[in-house]
Amino acid sequence: MRTHYCGELRASDIDKTVTLYGWVDRRRDHGGVIFLDIRDRTGVVQIVSDPQRTPDSYEQANTLRNEYVIKVTGRVSRRPDDSLNPRLPTGEVEIYADNIELLNAVRKQLPFQVSTADSEPVKEELRLKYRYLDLRRERMAKNLQLRHQVVKAMRRYLEDKAGFIEVETPVLTRSTPEGARDYILPSRANPGEWFALPQSPQLFKQILMVSGCDRYYQIARCFRDEDLRADRQPEFTQLDMEMSFMSMEEIIALNEDLVCHIFKSVKSKSVKDIDLPSPFPRLTYAEAMDRYGSDKPDTRFGLELVDVSDVVKDCGFKVFREAVAKKGIVKILPIPGGNEISNVRIKPGGDVFKEASEAGARGLAYIRVRENGEIDTIGAIKDNLSAEQKQEILRRTDAKPGHLLLFGAGDTATVNKTLDRLRQFMAKEFRLIDPEKINLLWITDFPMFEWNADEKRLEALHHPFTAPHPDDIDDLKTARAQAYDLVFNGFEVGGGSLRIYQRDIQEQVFEAIGLSEEEAHNKFGFLLEAFEYGTPPHGGIAYGLDRLVMLLAGEESIRDVIAFPKTQQAGCMLTDAPSKVDPKQLKELHVASTYKPKSDS
Amino acid sequence: MRTHYCGELRASDIDKTVTLYGWVDRRRDHGGVIFLDIRDRTGVVQIVSDPQRTPDSYEQANTLRNEYVIKVTGRVSRRPDDSLNPRLPTGEVEIYADNIELLNAVRKQLPFQVSTADSEPVKEELRLKYRYLDLRRERMAKNLQLRHQVVKAMRRYLEDKAGFIEVETPVLTRSTPEGARDYILPSRANPGEWFALPQSPQLFKQILMVSGCDRYYQIARCFRDEDLRADRQPEFTQLDMEMSFMSMEEIIALNEDLVCHIFKSVKSKSVKDIDLPSPFPRLTYAEAMDRYGSDKPDTRFGLELVDVSDVVKDCGFKVFREAVAKKGIVKILPIPGGNEISNVRIKPGGDVFKEASEAGARGLAYIRVRENGEIDTIGAIKDNLSAEQKQEILRRTDAKPGHLLLFGAGDTATVNKTLDRLRQFMAKEFRLIDPEKINLLWITDFPMFEWNADEKRLEALHHPFTAPHPDDIDDLKTARAQAYDLVFNGFEVGGGSLRIYQRDIQEQVFEAIGLSEEEAHNKFGFLLEAFEYGTPPHGGIAYGLDRLVMLLAGEESIRDVIAFPKTQQAGCMLTDAPSKVDPKQLKELHVASTYKPKSDS
Repeated sequence: MRTHYCGELRASDIDKTVTLYGWVDRRRDHGGVIFLDIRDRTGVVQIVSDPQRTPDSYEQANTLRNEYVIKVTGRVSRRPDDSLNPRLPTGEVEIYADNIELLNAVRKQLPFQVSTADSEPVKEELRLKYRYLDLRRERMAKNLQLRHQVVKAMRRYLEDKAGFIEVETPVLTRSTPEGARDYILPSRANPGEWFALPQSPQLFKQILMVSGCDRYYQIARCFRDEDLRADRQPEFTQLDMEMSFMSMEEIIALNEDLVCHIFKSVKSKSVKDIDLPSPFPRLTYAEAMDRYGSDKPDTRFGLELVDVSDVVKDCGFKVFREAVAKKGIVKILPIPGGNEISNVRIKPGGDVFKEASEAGARGLAYIRVRENGEIDTIGAIKDNLSAEQKQEILRRTDAKPGHLLLFGAGDTATVNKTLDRLRQFMAKEFRLIDPEKINLLWITDFPMFEWNADEKRLEALHHPFTAPHPDDIDDLKTARAQAYDLVFNGFEVGGGSLRIYQRDIQEQVFEAIGLSEEEAHNKFGFLLEAFEYGTPPHGGIAYGLDRLVMLLAGEESIRDVIAFPKTQQAGCMLTDAPSKVDPKQLKELHVASTYKPKSDS
Repeated sequence: MRTHYCGELRASDIDKTVTLYGWVDRRRDHGGVIFLDIRDRTGVVQIVSDPQRTPDSYEQANTLRNEYVIKVTGRVSRRPDDSLNPRLPTGEVEIYADNIELLNAVRKQLPFQVSTADSEPVKEELRLKYRYLDLRRERMAKNLQLRHQVVKAMRRYLEDKAGFIEVETPVLTRSTPEGARDYILPSRANPGEWFALPQSPQLFKQILMVSGCDRYYQIARCFRDEDLRADRQPEFTQLDMEMSFMSMEEIIALNEDLVCHIFKSVKSKSVKDIDLPSPFPRLTYAEAMDRYGSDKPDTRFGLELVDVSDVVKDCGFKVFREAVAKKGIVKILPIPGGNEISNVRIKPGGDVFKEASEAGARGLAYIRVRENGEIDTIGAIKDNLSAEQKQEILRRTDAKPGHLLLFGAGDTATVNKTLDRLRQFMAKEFRLIDPEKINLLWITDFPMFEWNADEKRLEALHHPFTAPHPDDIDDLKTARAQAYDLVFNGFEVGGGSLRIYQRDIQEQVFEAIGLSEEEAHNKFGFLLEAFEYGTPPHGGIAYGLDRLVMLLAGEESIRDVIAFPKTQQAGCMLTDAPSKVDPKQLKELHVASTYKPKSDS
């Protein structure tokens, strides 16, 4: 029976006889003395075997190779002074192996090194295919541990400090696509009908409030059949919460307390002892868009945007003038020291231009600020701004010699998107972000709806169950929502709102987004009906667990904090899912594939 | 802001001004004084309003009806002596309502009464359709709370006492049907291919052991597309565990400790202060089948079966003789006092006969034991048993006057199934089960395989990853498995085993169950390959959470411990899932329904 984990052994264990299990992390042969690092999930410890002192284990030790699984029994000893290793928690001790038992060998060539002593980058494809080896490596093992600690901290806070109860909601549910695409699966018992996997437990958690559950939470698996990006997965995990009889301020306060508890409970390379501000700062949606061009701004650095539409609305430069005339906007991203960036990079073909154009901008005007208020720019701007206009621009952007002013001009959404992207680009370029800094921020006062130009209709900015601001109830289409998003270093990690709990308002919102009465009844009839039977005022929030853990772990992809993620082609490299299935399965389900692969001939 | 929950108020709160939120549980008008019971998830408390003492709330109080949602502010007072209610935790106090605010009304007729004062049975269909009302009722609210407490106790034990970490495994995975049918769903990104929902996280948890995770747990949703029975659901929840480097005895000991912790942590109407035996009793599979005819016997009562095959193997009664000749069996269920049961009930058409025939028996022979060793039975047996045979039967069954001996004769499986069923039937009939009694029992030494007569092949009794007993490795087909099931009052609540961790043994087991090398590689290639890279010895267990909570709650259906269960037709009465979907959805997925409803014409 195991007496200790490898990484636990300390000087205080010296002279104890211990039994350890683990993997051979490294093996060195120093002139007949064999040193093995043996590793388990807690860390490594050094095993020693030589023909004189440990003849019973020496022969076995001699045959071991990296990643062999062994059981070791031996005595903990102090290391000789010249081999103490202060960088290793177990670096004061080593174990003379009385007995080594080989439990399982490695029979193939390792596709990459697993040892804690190795930190060579490995191609992600290999890491995903041999995930069991990748998860043995220190980085991923730590990430999984961190994820567990985060979830544990959430649960403990909600259960012990805030009276929440965990309730499981169905995974096999009804398709009500709104926004993203549903994953659907055929029902065998009801041929021709389909279940859907939930995009979130939204409807069920609201029903739980109608049920008097009062405070609900769940670490919930959610599913969206979307085209994947670096930080998206077909299945992802939310901390999902809902509570009755609480105001927006009460919900926000409780959540700040929860987040502080998480930060206090976990430690990682990006979370050290940090005092979070109390309360967290807030921005309205309008202000965030105005100052940062984004509803999830990273405010760890400045580079705020400056609106100069009124200054240039009558100027001679057609691009600016027309942008304002068409109800668009002209904004500036002022970059201190930005003149280091060459014209080549800003002009078509350059990397800065590329950023702008990927965000939808068709051009990228700029001004370089020189000594004595001189400016340096392309002719079209230079010649078409009056001295007063130039002065006002310099004044508003607080421009100093060396500043680069990048212009966005056009429809508001594109300008904001472009300058938000350039702002983040420049922050990296000029290393404006302190990696130790943690920035948490609430965004409030979102609009209820935004215009979907493709479908030519309003759509809910959050979801159609979000309650409108009581002051704005008379004109729902322009109303603000009682919604709040939590932004962490420029990533939206949480989104919530008070919910509608009156049938008539819910019906008005469905109407506003163009849902016919029949559709509304078909999809959400049970919710509308529930509102008739004593529904309490309620609200909630959901946190994207994968993204939150990614940020806490200091990783750049959520795949690095998920044990078995899908690739960007929505497949699993380990199990090779999805796959063909037995035709018998399809027949029983009364479904068929209609896919005709393109013929090669 | 809420100051208290309703059910929390006590005499110590007298004179406090409190603000409560909740539902009107009952409203009574006693000559102008209105009494309201207001209810939240913690219980009810009495509110008083009358025109003299609380003129500001009286008008509102007068309009309230059952299940209206209200906010009440008022002063806690001692109830008059003649209206103290010792049965109610809040029965010493009442609240004079300074203010009552109506938050939401009920606009339709309630389909059934919700009040805690009402315990009328309600048809399950109605309960499921209006689940939000059903969950407000005391019984279901308590069941959800209990489920939460059970899960919490599991997590705390595993995390705090046993060093387990929680890891999430995929829900979108690969179809590897083995036993039950998979739920499958089409992949849009990989047309023609399908994901499957996991029947359990078995393969992933084994891969986590290969990954060095050491001790894993998850409260995991699992899916089986089976025809439903009373205690089955298409989606169900497991406490899933796996651990490395532990012997079967160590795993069993840890799990007994876990179960004791759960019992100590939760209280319910069926779980009081109970000292569980330590260690839990065990039976081998062979012994359980022999004595009880079942591998999940309820041993809270006796009624053990008696094998008399050797006694009757040469007797004149053809049914018995042939049963033994065909390698079957003849067993007796002796029922003390069973002579109360009339012949009519035992003969074709009777309820006892029906039980037997539903288990597959074609006849039901019996003997009634009278005074002085006389027996009374149908002619065919009476005339065909010798005096010695009769005496031996009476001796072996320890028969006393008044005993009824029911015979099972035929193939062993059917005899056991029949007598197991009759044994349970008789335990109810004669009220042999003490409802306060808790019976926990390990079943061990299962055979690795059982014969599947339909498919004419061996199949794994547990699953094909179960390790064979090391003493039996030379003949896998008859080997015992290193498996252990936990039985709770006659229900299997947990099942586990040590796993195979060597590729060659795994391949032999696949071969034994008739899986070709190609199939094995297609479905489980990644697991076989993982075994080559240093797989530790490991084992685990999974508990059926729904069933465990059902037993702890004293309920008879798992639907009563699931917030939103499916019906036996695998549908959701609340949301009406599954449903038709938009043809656009199917087109995007490259699938079509092939179902042709039968025409009525």
